[in-house]
Amino acid sequence: VTVDRPIITLLTDFGFHDSFVAQMKGAILGINLHANIVDISHTVDSFNIRQGAIKLGFCYKYFPPMTIHMAVVDPGVGSDQRPIIVVTDKYYFVGPDNGIFSYVYHENVENVSAYHITASHYFLKTKSSTFHGRDIFSPVAAYLSKGVPHEKFGERIEDVKKFHIPEPRVVSKTIIEGEVFYVDHFGNAITNITESTIRRLSENHGKTSFEVLFNGRKIQSRRYYSEVEDKGLYTLLNSSGYVELFVYRGNASAIFNIKVGDNVGFILKKI
Amino acid sequence: VTVDRPIITLLTDFGFHDSFVAQMKGAILGINLHANIVDISHTVDSFNIRQGAIKLGFCYKYFPPMTIHMAVVDPGVGSDQRPIIVVTDKYYFVGPDNGIFSYVYHENVENVSAYHITASHYFLKTKSSTFHGRDIFSPVAAYLSKGVPHEKFGERIEDVKKFHIPEPRVVSKTIIEGEVFYVDHFGNAITNITESTIRRLSENHGKTSFEVLFNGRKIQSRRYYSEVEDKGLYTLLNSSGYVELFVYRGNASAIFNIKVGDNVGFILKKI
Amino acid sequence: VTVDRPIITLLTDFGFHDSFVAQMKGAILGINLHANIVDISHTVDSFNIRQGAIKLGFCYKYFPPMTIHMAVVDPGVGSDQRPIIVVTDKYYFVGPDNGIFSYVYHENVENVSAYHITASHYFLKTKSSTFHGRDIFSPVAAYLSKGVPHEKFGERIEDVKKFHIPEPRVVSKTIIEGEVFYVDHFGNAITNITESTIRRLSENHGKTSFEVLFNGRKIQSRRYYSEVEDKGLYTLLNSSGYVELFVYRGNASAIFNIKVGDNVGFILKKI
Repeated sequence: VTVDRPIITLLTDFGFHDSFVAQMKGAILGINLHANIVDISHTVDSFNIRQGAIKLGFCYKYFPPMTIHMAVVDPGVGSDQRPIIVVTDKYYFVGPDNGIFSYVYHENVENVSAYHITASHYFLKTKSSTFHGRDIFSPVAAYLSKGVPHEKFGERIEDVKKFHIPEPRVVSKTIIEGEVFYVDHFGNAITNITESTIRRLSENHGKTSFEVLFNGRKIQSRRYYSEVEDKGLYTLLNSSGYVELFVYRGNASAIFNIKVGDNVGFILKKI
Repeated sequence: VTVDRPIITLLTDFGFHDSFVAQMKGAILGINLHANIVDISHTVDSFNIRQGAIKLGFCYKYFPPMTIHMAVVDPGVGSDQRPIIVVTDKYYFVGPDNGIFSYVYHENVENVSAYHITASHYFLKTKSSTFHGRDIFSPVAAYLSKGVPHEKFGERIEDVKKFHIPEPRVVSKTIIEGEVFYVDHFGNAITNITESTIRRLSENHGKTSFEVLFNGRKIQSRRYYSEVEDKGLYTLLNSSGYVELFVYRGNASAIFNIKVGDNVGFILKKI
Repeated sequence: VTVDRPIITLLTDFGFHDSFVAQMKGAILGINLHANIVDISHTVDSFNIRQGAIKLGFCYKYFPPMTIHMAVVDPGVGSDQRPIIVVTDKYYFVGPDNGIFSYVYHENVENVSAYHITASHYFLKTKSSTFHGRDIFSPVAAYLSKGVPHEKFGERIEDVKKFHIPEPRVVSKTIIEGEVFYVDHFGNAITNITESTIRRLSENHGKTSFEVLFNGRKIQSRRYYSEVEDKGLYTLLNSSGYVELFVYRGNASAIFNIKVGDNVGFILKKI
């Protein structure tokens, strides 16, 4: 199946300083001039596969069906680590088998399969041992975007590497224990407590609100940032469906010293 | 009216570290696969609406007619602040009603109208209270790019929020008093004294040159940067039509401690 | 000759903070709505022409034939420095005549010609003395992408400015003396000793391996990064065909204080 202007997204830890990303874009366009290449981010912290997995998890589902998501945070490049294609009912994912697609697996348990890329006739002729992003993943994504079926690139595999994704712990009918798993550009601290977990919890409680416990303090919730006027710490349900700690027009992480891994409590309150 | 490959530009304070920009691009492409998305800048200082307005003001007019400019520096997101479309004879602008389009109004006094976006059936279904960039502005820009008339998105409004834009003060027939309003990446300090003001002033003076007074010193003018060989402070009329202070191959702002808001005098000289 | 979706790449020292890059993209799209603009890098160190030349050299050849590469690191803009088009058998290059295309000349000795851009009717009407990137190079690239023959823009010239590119010195049948010429985003230090030099050297030696001498120490070679497990300094032949010094999951340049210009020895070893 082909689409009119196939989208290939790129997520890497290559930064914008060098020409690595440009080499990949050149390799893709050399195979499919009609590919619409969209940068997700190239500023994943060097070698931080988990952070790359989270960034991809935050955005892949906003793209139209048939989008090909390429993710290259790949410190193990050149070793016996497998290059893979992951397929869900809506998307393709291309990258190394090192956990970078953990959130894709986590959120598509029923509809996900993976393929070990071995069909080397699709690879770039300059194939090196240190830049699969350019030599393997770019051409594979480009050929996928031209309609080559994903089964053509290699055998199906079942033992894809996945990170453990820490789930919040339901402590009681109104209390959840979670943790901060990402801090964004504005300093907002995002916890692993999700809207769907809250909905499950609040099913038998009628109309509810919530508070967060952080560092021994109760943090009040708001619906949006500018509902607050002071520089205190507040919490809201953010645009990705996660409970988030924030300071209005301020950097919550810096001001209140909040880091990835910090514990947070969540308390459901009847209104 | 539709164009072949409609352009949607993006200006935000979201940075490139997170997936916010990618979520917006996904939302746009989900509605119009043919949109040509062009990044203006995503490094506006967090929440700095005025800086965003200036950056947009510097570049919007270089794009072809029918371009849709989306600007999302939006600390007030989720409050009763209105989402708006601003329409000039050449362009569409989509974003919050918080002053971000002040320069557009300033430069299009005769040909500008605004519409309060209320037609929520165009919004993304995942609509959140904290990310109108993705949930409202992106789909509205995408539907505009598909030819939906701007009147379909809501009622015309007259009371759009605009910053006061400090105008240079004409002190005498040869002297203007202005101020620095932007410092660029190279450290060049851009003043609010424009080519057109100078032209009006010099109409009855024949051939003229100029000097700038900064911090009690007279600054000589040049036509281009490399006309200078030393590391002194000079001034020229820059590529956007503004009088600018510069150091050749150096950072004028850092070396001479020039900041936004600093006063400058402008002296017209006969040649 | 025209292609379906002509590619124009951009390499500048303009950063992403200002609107300079957006002004260029607007100018290009104003002439050719079908241009596919690809950013190579906008974070060349300010005014560092040599660094820009290296970055362009690393990636231009991965793009499909007919790609137009625009490079604007241009501290001499406005002076009598010439705007030029460089043409190889595969690509066009547009930018200032200041050495930015040195690697293109170095690698295309047989198939390269240059043209002095003088046909000012192709320039942007707002032509300034300080922003040829927008006013000259962008429209010239855009018209090239529409099929205007390169000869139309001006006369052929022979005296294009080129940097001296330091070549490694062959000291004996098994020893080469080279230097570090680039440090990438990960801190890998790239030397000017290339795969082809090594191949020439090893022709009569059968199967070979190599070591690098740096700072009085012998550095062992590996095939890929993760073949190493400790944090020592190693060397490999990188994906661009250069000998490179690296630390696995670490910043070699920072840890071992390696800088551009540092000498390295190369020793061929029989296996």
